[in-house]
Amino acid sequence: MMRLLKMIAFLLLPVLLTAQHPVTFFTKTEAAEVKRNLFRYPLLTQSYKDIRSEVDTWIGKDIDVPFPKDPAGGYTHDKHKYNYTLIFNSGILYNLTGDIKYARLVKEVLLKYAALNPTLKNHPQATSSSPGRIFWQALNDANWLVYAGMAYDLVYNSLSTAERKTIEEGAFKPEVDFITKDLQTWFDLIHNHGVWACAGVGIVGIASGNQEYVDMALYGTKKDGKSGFIALMDGLFSPDGYYTEGPYYTRYAILPFYLFATALDHARPSLKIFEYRNRILQKALVSGLQQTNLDGAFFALNDALKEKDYTSNELVTAINTAWAIYGKDSGLLVVAEKQGRVLLNKGGVSIAAAIASAKTVTPFYPYRTVEYTVGGKGDEGGVSLLRNGKEKNLTTLIYKYTSHGLSHGHYDKLSYNLYDKGNEILTDYGAVRFIGIEQKYGGRYLPETKGYAAQTIAHNTMVVDERSHFDGKESVAEKFHSEKLFSSVNNPAVQVVAAKEENAYKGVKLQRTVYMITLPEGRKLLADIFTTTATEEHQYDLPFHYNGQLISTSVKYNPYTMKLETLGSKNGYQFLWKEAEAIAADTLVQLTFLNDRTYYTVSSLVQGQAQVFFTRSGANDPDFNLRHEPAMIIRKKSLSPSFISVTEIHGNFDPILEFSTNSYASVKEIKLLQRDEQYTVAELSVNDKKLIIAQVNKDFDDTKVHTASGLSWTGPFVVLFDGKKLN
Amino acid sequence: MMRLLKMIAFLLLPVLLTAQHPVTFFTKTEAAEVKRNLFRYPLLTQSYKDIRSEVDTWIGKDIDVPFPKDPAGGYTHDKHKYNYTLIFNSGILYNLTGDIKYARLVKEVLLKYAALNPTLKNHPQATSSSPGRIFWQALNDANWLVYAGMAYDLVYNSLSTAERKTIEEGAFKPEVDFITKDLQTWFDLIHNHGVWACAGVGIVGIASGNQEYVDMALYGTKKDGKSGFIALMDGLFSPDGYYTEGPYYTRYAILPFYLFATALDHARPSLKIFEYRNRILQKALVSGLQQTNLDGAFFALNDALKEKDYTSNELVTAINTAWAIYGKDSGLLVVAEKQGRVLLNKGGVSIAAAIASAKTVTPFYPYRTVEYTVGGKGDEGGVSLLRNGKEKNLTTLIYKYTSHGLSHGHYDKLSYNLYDKGNEILTDYGAVRFIGIEQKYGGRYLPETKGYAAQTIAHNTMVVDERSHFDGKESVAEKFHSEKLFSSVNNPAVQVVAAKEENAYKGVKLQRTVYMITLPEGRKLLADIFTTTATEEHQYDLPFHYNGQLISTSVKYNPYTMKLETLGSKNGYQFLWKEAEAIAADTLVQLTFLNDRTYYTVSSLVQGQAQVFFTRSGANDPDFNLRHEPAMIIRKKSLSPSFISVTEIHGNFDPILEFSTNSYASVKEIKLLQRDEQYTVAELSVNDKKLIIAQVNKDFDDTKVHTASGLSWTGPFVVLFDGKKLN
Repeated sequence: MMRLLKMIAFLLLPVLLTAQHPVTFFTKTEAAEVKRNLFRYPLLTQSYKDIRSEVDTWIGKDIDVPFPKDPAGGYTHDKHKYNYTLIFNSGILYNLTGDIKYARLVKEVLLKYAALNPTLKNHPQATSSSPGRIFWQALNDANWLVYAGMAYDLVYNSLSTAERKTIEEGAFKPEVDFITKDLQTWFDLIHNHGVWACAGVGIVGIASGNQEYVDMALYGTKKDGKSGFIALMDGLFSPDGYYTEGPYYTRYAILPFYLFATALDHARPSLKIFEYRNRILQKALVSGLQQTNLDGAFFALNDALKEKDYTSNELVTAINTAWAIYGKDSGLLVVAEKQGRVLLNKGGVSIAAAIASAKTVTPFYPYRTVEYTVGGKGDEGGVSLLRNGKEKNLTTLIYKYTSHGLSHGHYDKLSYNLYDKGNEILTDYGAVRFIGIEQKYGGRYLPETKGYAAQTIAHNTMVVDERSHFDGKESVAEKFHSEKLFSSVNNPAVQVVAAKEENAYKGVKLQRTVYMITLPEGRKLLADIFTTTATEEHQYDLPFHYNGQLISTSVKYNPYTMKLETLGSKNGYQFLWKEAEAIAADTLVQLTFLNDRTYYTVSSLVQGQAQVFFTRSGANDPDFNLRHEPAMIIRKKSLSPSFISVTEIHGNFDPILEFSTNSYASVKEIKLLQRDEQYTVAELSVNDKKLIIAQVNKDFDDTKVHTASGLSWTGPFVVLFDGKKLN
Repeated sequence: MMRLLKMIAFLLLPVLLTAQHPVTFFTKTEAAEVKRNLFRYPLLTQSYKDIRSEVDTWIGKDIDVPFPKDPAGGYTHDKHKYNYTLIFNSGILYNLTGDIKYARLVKEVLLKYAALNPTLKNHPQATSSSPGRIFWQALNDANWLVYAGMAYDLVYNSLSTAERKTIEEGAFKPEVDFITKDLQTWFDLIHNHGVWACAGVGIVGIASGNQEYVDMALYGTKKDGKSGFIALMDGLFSPDGYYTEGPYYTRYAILPFYLFATALDHARPSLKIFEYRNRILQKALVSGLQQTNLDGAFFALNDALKEKDYTSNELVTAINTAWAIYGKDSGLLVVAEKQGRVLLNKGGVSIAAAIASAKTVTPFYPYRTVEYTVGGKGDEGGVSLLRNGKEKNLTTLIYKYTSHGLSHGHYDKLSYNLYDKGNEILTDYGAVRFIGIEQKYGGRYLPETKGYAAQTIAHNTMVVDERSHFDGKESVAEKFHSEKLFSSVNNPAVQVVAAKEENAYKGVKLQRTVYMITLPEGRKLLADIFTTTATEEHQYDLPFHYNGQLISTSVKYNPYTMKLETLGSKNGYQFLWKEAEAIAADTLVQLTFLNDRTYYTVSSLVQGQAQVFFTRSGANDPDFNLRHEPAMIIRKKSLSPSFISVTEIHGNFDPILEFSTNSYASVKEIKLLQRDEQYTVAELSVNDKKLIIAQVNKDFDDTKVHTASGLSWTGPFVVLFDGKKLN
């Protein structure tokens, strides 16, 4: 209700577009401040020199603005992409040096676009539902609008009225008309594309004093506030800043959010855009950074390329801006130092100054255990990042019980991934795409993304009857979300999150509780109680996708040495080679693998009979697009089986000294003492001691007293080690 | 002749074993020098503190000397290994601190061994032809003798005569007797095991004043100089220092060479052991270092584990010793700094001082193009390391035309490997072994080493009729070696090496010339002219084992998407999955792959018809021991086909900026203009320019003038680019 009131207040605000330029990337005052400090701080100086030496190579040259032809990675694509960065940078240099040659470069390029753009039809390589004109997809055209819009604003003062008219009507209007009219539905979408589209149109609007553009950008083409930038700020983030498409796309969307907000902050300060929704843009940045690995790579939830990290340009922009707007933050400084460059704005000046005077910057971002809700109202499930360990020894468990995550979402309800010591241990495939490589389908998403990477079997969660969650239908998946049952994350000895998913399969309820436990002697265990409740018998597959060298397994398997076949024929199964399989009965299935210098053992209880598969991705890959990654999959056929599993982090391997310590698992046995509607109680033998985990399944009241399996405790769970309560 | 005379001179030298102790690791004077400097240089201080804090944890404790039971990686193995390092370090500390507790620790442990060793029979896990007693193999017992011998010497002065007798007769004599009598043949072998065995017996001999031991160590059990340490120095190194088993074993053998030499230098200075064979031990160290990658990892020729680098303890010892003996060397300083620790001897003091006073140490070892001969006389083929590029941009081609390399040799005549920018690009599998991991067959070599890694098909060289060179028989392979025909390595624009192999297959002669070419614009090409001469038709397979993501290929192939089979059934072929195959006719077969941020394209000419296979290792691997690595294999069935191939290093991929540059190969066509008994002439179209390579096949006189294919040149080859001579 408050939000609605606020939005209406926005709509009623008088739209006063200031006539002063520049007004998008920075203002005249800010430019002067940057100029004053250019040679005071090494990082600022270097960033300035880098831009200047790059732009200077083009001064006096005829810059090609080719007729669009190639997909991503091809010449015309890369050239147009290069051009918009070039004119943006040249525009900045014009303001910092006053040298007209930089303004002239921008003008000449924009005039070429003014001649080109009116002639364009849909790009010949357009394959998506949102075709571009300069580029193969409209998203890239929106990127172009953002940067070309800022470039135009940056040299606005140097242009004649006629030149302005030519550029505004030739370069910008056809593009703005195209994406707001031809692609109206797309423009109004609540999705990262929409953020870019609104930012592009809005920045061009501010740069050219076009109120219509700015209004459409803020409130959607219908100007009803149901779409547009404000609606995107409401709809794409949860109240605590989780971006609904996941961390990889946080990175991508945060740039237009911050750039357009900056322009709005200058042009329409009364909007107080950076304060909107209790500083939602600050929360978005921090939540994005919390969702990175020690090396800065974004966690690979949903469609994600693993090489992307927080040194990307998008994060440079966001961090430099946030620093200026929200104030200094030692966490941001860690990232800024690794980025090794700053924007030439006031945030950049301040960060460069802070780094110059900092004695030491700590080596890692200040990661901590965090739990995010999902959805505009925060009521669409969530994601918990359980963390434990200092600096390089950080362990992170990412437990995902979110809503689907729009078109880049995966069918991975209740899945988790494990990172340890900066390495991905239990993995999420991410996406199948070679961005920026023309030979690989123009850098687009490859069919194996939807075919394999998005399917449930590609994740560490339950697959029932070899079908993906929601049968892999986005339209259905978008209607539901998992639900957190309880969590307790304040005691480093035991962090626990429980969630359930009741809609992924008809007739099967899934419930999973994960415990990150540190034993008194320091050993870390991840305990996983995954229960199913069904009305009929089904086939349940629980994969453990692991990253490492198989060292040993307790399973007597039949290896396929001379011939390989796929594990299945659809829903992602056709992408897995079956390297070995086994029958296990009433036993502990154990798999020990080595990653870098640490051993990991997955131990999982099998009551009755189960099949165990050792698989590797890479089948059905005619274009050699997939990585070849191993998994162990435990298959149970029964009514409502439980999967009680423990992943243990243990030991050390020193290849130089040729020594191993603690290379064997300490978990020797798992017993399921009780499992009924009310309680699940598991007992683990850890060497010669007992670890007992008892939890309630339905009544999560913190104060309620429970008795089960001879134990008595208060609240939703208890963890006992050697007879002593750990939590 | 000179060598023989020298050896006889050695034999005639009066054997004067000095009675002063310590005399092995360092002398009393040297110990005093170390003590004086202990707290002057940070690296020395730290190294001292590390050792002291490690040893101090054991002072006053009862140290277990268990009855031998486990293989490598198991408790008793690791404990005995730990013990010998511990007593060695404790002995050093006794000399540096004078604190008797350190001597007492050594004494107590050695007395336990004096009780244990006489009771030992062959180790229960012994599987090799040289079983051990304390360990599963005699090699490890020799390691024990080296360190225990030094430890004994270091505390000799603190022991009573009775204690000395107990230790010498109980701890050492059974071991020395065992390896010099029971394992006499093994002890006398010219092999890295022999180096350790001689060093062990020799050091014990020096430590205990036992001339018999020292003589056996120096001249073999028969004391005829045909085996023993001097014979090993003669036989295992070529005159320029190449160690016959390859760089991985250089690392391993260099330690006992340097340790025993140090002890001899103290005990028998008249031997001038460090000067022997024109300072062969210095040459050995330098050649070992030249055979490392930018990251310090030893090139994976023959049996080799890729994780081994020059920071290993063996190299710390060698470098610290060489520094003291042969003088300061800025190259060694680079390595010493990366090692991050020094020995507590005079070399360690001096290196720590040099590092403390050095302003900057260059980031990489001073790699250069080098060519090594192989064999004691340097007449058993060789290996050329062609290098090009500065610092991080270093490219290294390793072309191997050696003799077999003893029991760890591979069947890989005329094979090459390519490293670029610190990454392995065209690869050698190395060996299949998980050293220090008990679960993997006690850390021993795994059957896949001989089954796959040693076979010809696992290397980038020609396989005829699916049989390995010399039919994979070591006894046959040991009789032959390849032969260098000519080389020219002084012009960085064109470096070339030609070699031939006429014994690997009956009736087939192999000849391969490799060119590392830098075009005027900077592009690097590796051209490879591999010709065969046979009397009958054969099947010829030329593999390119590559490390990277397949980006594209010119070949229209049939992929095996739902079922995989192996490429063959024996000689290593059974370990390769056939992922795709193709028929190529009169065309250029091209494969572009991406490694890290650089593109690489292999282009190979097919005249007539060929088959092309895309394979991956990992078949027939029931224990999950193999890595899954891709290869492209070109198969020609004809009388005497030529394989003209070019590997091009090109372009750049920036995953953060999502840009690729030069991602397409510039080689568009290859023509074989001439190939006859006298000449081979190839013409490559590099974009719109011609690169012509003309070479003679038989008469390699540097001054001879040749005319072929309309070209005229002097010497064994000419390379022309765009009409201009490059070489």
